[in-house]
Amino acid sequence: MSGQGMVLGVLGGGQLARMLAQAASPLGIRTLALDPAAGGCAADVAMTQQAEWDDWAALQRFADQVDAVTFDFENVPAATARWLAERVPVYPPPEALEVAQDRLTEKTLFRACGLPTPEFRAIASRDELEAAVAGIGLPAILKTRRLGYDGKGQFRLREPADIEAAWQALGAQAETVGLILEAFVPFERELSVIAVRDRQGGFRGWPLTRNWHVDGVLSLSLAPAPQVDASVIAEAMGHARTLAERLQYVGVFALELFVRDGQLLGNEMAPRVHNSGHWTIEGAVTSQFENHVRAVLGLPLGLTAARGPAAMFNWIGELPDRRAALAVPDLHWHDYGKTARAGRKVGHATVCAAEASALAGRLEQAAQILGRATQAEPAISLLRQD
Amino acid sequence: MSGQGMVLGVLGGGQLARMLAQAASPLGIRTLALDPAAGGCAADVAMTQQAEWDDWAALQRFADQVDAVTFDFENVPAATARWLAERVPVYPPPEALEVAQDRLTEKTLFRACGLPTPEFRAIASRDELEAAVAGIGLPAILKTRRLGYDGKGQFRLREPADIEAAWQALGAQAETVGLILEAFVPFERELSVIAVRDRQGGFRGWPLTRNWHVDGVLSLSLAPAPQVDASVIAEAMGHARTLAERLQYVGVFALELFVRDGQLLGNEMAPRVHNSGHWTIEGAVTSQFENHVRAVLGLPLGLTAARGPAAMFNWIGELPDRRAALAVPDLHWHDYGKTARAGRKVGHATVCAAEASALAGRLEQAAQILGRATQAEPAISLLRQD
Ligand SMILES: Nc1ncnc2c1ncn2[C@@H]1O[C@H](COP(=O)(O)OP(=O)(O)OP(=O)(O)O)[C@@H](O)[C@H]1O
Ligand SMILES: Nc1ncnc2c1ncn2[C@@H]1O[C@H](COP(=O)(O)OP(=O)(O)OP(=O)(O)O)[C@@H](O)[C@H]1O
Ligand SMILES: [Mg+2]
Ligand SMILES: [Mg+2]
Repeated sequence: MSGQGMVLGVLGGGQLARMLAQAASPLGIRTLALDPAAGGCAADVAMTQQAEWDDWAALQRFADQVDAVTFDFENVPAATARWLAERVPVYPPPEALEVAQDRLTEKTLFRACGLPTPEFRAIASRDELEAAVAGIGLPAILKTRRLGYDGKGQFRLREPADIEAAWQALGAQAETVGLILEAFVPFERELSVIAVRDRQGGFRGWPLTRNWHVDGVLSLSLAPAPQVDASVIAEAMGHARTLAERLQYVGVFALELFVRDGQLLGNEMAPRVHNSGHWTIEGAVTSQFENHVRAVLGLPLGLTAARGPAAMFNWIGELPDRRAALAVPDLHWHDYGKTARAGRKVGHATVCAAEASALAGRLEQAAQILGRATQAEPAISLLRQD
Repeated sequence: MSGQGMVLGVLGGGQLARMLAQAASPLGIRTLALDPAAGGCAADVAMTQQAEWDDWAALQRFADQVDAVTFDFENVPAATARWLAERVPVYPPPEALEVAQDRLTEKTLFRACGLPTPEFRAIASRDELEAAVAGIGLPAILKTRRLGYDGKGQFRLREPADIEAAWQALGAQAETVGLILEAFVPFERELSVIAVRDRQGGFRGWPLTRNWHVDGVLSLSLAPAPQVDASVIAEAMGHARTLAERLQYVGVFALELFVRDGQLLGNEMAPRVHNSGHWTIEGAVTSQFENHVRAVLGLPLGLTAARGPAAMFNWIGELPDRRAALAVPDLHWHDYGKTARAGRKVGHATVCAAEASALAGRLEQAAQILGRATQAEPAISLLRQD
C-alpha cells in the first residue's frame, strides 16, 4: 500500500489504539501497536507487535517501522519512552508523560501553573497517613500515586476508623508506586477539557465536557457542557493551555476538573486521548483521535467545534444489545471487540442531535430501549433545563 | 476478539471494501475481503483472502468464515454469487446484481418500472450499429453492455463518419460482453439517488446528490443537490424505491439520473455503495457504508439525513498534497492507500459546513490551496446562487 502513507507507532494495544487506528486509516496512515500482552483489541484494525517494554531489540524493530510514536497507555515506563525518543519522534514528550504518571508531581505542577487542586499530601507510612488525615480532614481519598485508572488503587476514608482499612488496602504500595492523600471534594460537577497542541505550539480545545462517574469509572459524558459560564470556560481553557505549554506538550490530552462553589480544581491530567472525548468522533468536526494523529505526525490540526450536542454512554462489563441500540436515531455504536468482564470498558455509544431538546428525547429513547434509565438520567434532566 | 462480533464477507478488495471495513469496525464487525488479485487496498483494514471467482474450495472456506456476503465489485460472475447464496446470505441478491450488470436488462427494467431512459438499442453487428445510428440519431454513445466502469468501454459518436472508429474500438466486444447504443442526452444536470433497503423491506434515501463527470469519470459531488424541485426529489426517490422493490434489493444502491428539460431519465443503477455517496461518511447522520453493513447483516438502518451541505472531490491518478488539504477547515481526507496511476481513483476529500455560503468559501479555499479551481468551480457557483 502506498498513497501518502506513513506509519504511526502506538505503545499499548487497547481501545484507544484501536480508535487511533480507525482515525488514521482514512488519512492513509497505518498503525503499528506494540503491547506486552497478546490479543489487544487494536489487532482488528492495526498491525501489532508483541514485546516487553524493555525488549530493546524488539523496540528497535518497532522504531524502524514507524514515523512517530505515541501512547494508548499512559503507564508505559518512562525509560522506554526516552529510549524511543532518541530514535524516532515520540509525542507527547516523555517528560510530559512522566509528570502525568505521578499524581504528586501532576498536582504540584497544577498549583505551580495557578490551577488550584484539592488539598493533598504524599504518604510514605501509616504515621504520615494519620498525620495527613488530621491535617486535611475527612472525608478524604487515599490513592496510589502511579498506575491508577478507572478509580482503581483508591480508598475513600469517611471516618478516622477507616484509616486502618485504608492502610490494609493500599499501605503495601507506599514503597512501590507511592501514595497520596487527597481531600474529598464535594463538587457540584465534573468537567474535562479535551485539547490538542501541535508541534509548532498551535493549541485548540474542544467544547468542555460534563462527566458523571459511577464507582470511580466514567459512566456518561455530555458536550458541550450545558450551563457553564463563559468565564469558567475561558478559565478552564486557559489552564489547559498553560499546562500544555509548560510541558511542551504535543498531541491530545484531557484535563479533569472539579467545580466547587463555582471554582475550578484540577483533579488530574491524562496525557493521551481520553474517554471523556469519545463523543468527538461523531459530535465534533474533527475527533480527538484524528487530531492526535495529525499532531503527532506533524500535520495541520482540524477544527474542534462541536457539530451539535452529543452524549456518550460508557459500556462497562458487557455491551447492551446492539440491535436494540442501533434502532435509536443518531446513535453511534462502538464495540471494542473485547470479551465481557466485570468492570471492563467494552464499548461506548454516542447519541447526537441538532439541539438539546432533541438530544434529550433520543437519550430517553435509548435509556428505555436499553434499560439504562439511571445511566442516562443526569444528562436528560440537564438537557431539559437547557 | 469478540464483543458482539460478526464477519462481513466482501467480494472484491478495493476502496469500497476498504470503506465498508472502516464503517464495520466500530460496530464490532470484522471484514473479510476476497479478491482474485493480491494487494487490494482493503488489506490495510480488513482480513483478505486471494482466490479466483471459480475456486469453489476457496469460496467454501470464505463462506464458512462469514455471516453474510456483499460486493465491492459489481462484476463478480453471477454464478459465483449464486453459488455463495446457497451457502450464506448474499446481499444484494444475485438476481439484482445480474440485472444491474447488463446495461440492456437494466434500462429495460427502468422502462418497465416507469422510469424513462435515453433511447437505446442492443448492437450485435456493424449493420445493426448503422441501423441504430439511423434510428436514434447523433450524437450517441456506443457502450459495452457489461464490465464498463468510470466511462471505460464507451465511444462517443458525433457524426456518421465516427461509426467506423466506434466499431474498430468496440466491435470485437459485441460477442463477449455485448454492446448497446444510447442516444447522447444533452442533460442540464446529473443527479444520483443513494438509497438503502433492508431485509424487511424498509427503505431510506439520502438527500439527492448532484454530480459532475470529467471524461466519463466522477469529479465532484454536491449534496443535498441544490435547486431541485420537491416534485423532482419525490419522483427520483419513488423510482429508486420501485426499482429496489422490484429487485427485492437489500443493501445500498445508486440510481444515476440525467435531468433534461426538467425530466428525469435513468442512466444506470450501481448495485453497491457508490462514489457519489462518499460524502455521506461525514455529511450524513449515517454513511452509505454503515447502512450497507447494517442492511446486509440484518441490523436496523440508521438515519440518512444530511448534517449540512457537503461536497466531495475525487482524486484521480494521484493525490494532492495531504498537508495542504488538511489545512482546509472541515475537510475530510480519504487516501485509499493505492499507488498513483493515470485514471485511477486514489482517494477523495469531503468538505462540510453548516450552510451553503460557508461551504462555498471553504471550497474556494480548497480549490486555491490545491490548485483545483476547475474541479471545484461548478459547486462553488451553484452554492453562491443558493
Ligand atoms: N479528591 C476527590 N474528591 C472527590 N471525588 C474524587 C476525588 N478524586 C477522585 N474522585 C472521583 O473519582 C473519579 C476517579 O478518580 P481519578 O480521576 O483520580 O481516578 P482514575 O483512576 O485516574 O480514573 P480515570 O482513569 O477514570 O480518570 C473522579 O472522576 C471523581 O469522580
Ligand atoms: N447517454 C448519455 N448521454 C449523455 N451523457 C452520458 C450518457 N451516458 C453516459 N454519459 C456520461 O458519461 C458518464 C459515465 O457514463 P456511465 O455512467 O454510463 O458509465 P460508467 O462507466 O458506468 O461510469 P461510472 O462507473 O462512473 O458510473 C455519465 O455519468 C455521463 O456523464
Ligand atoms: Mg480521572
Ligand atoms: Mg455511471
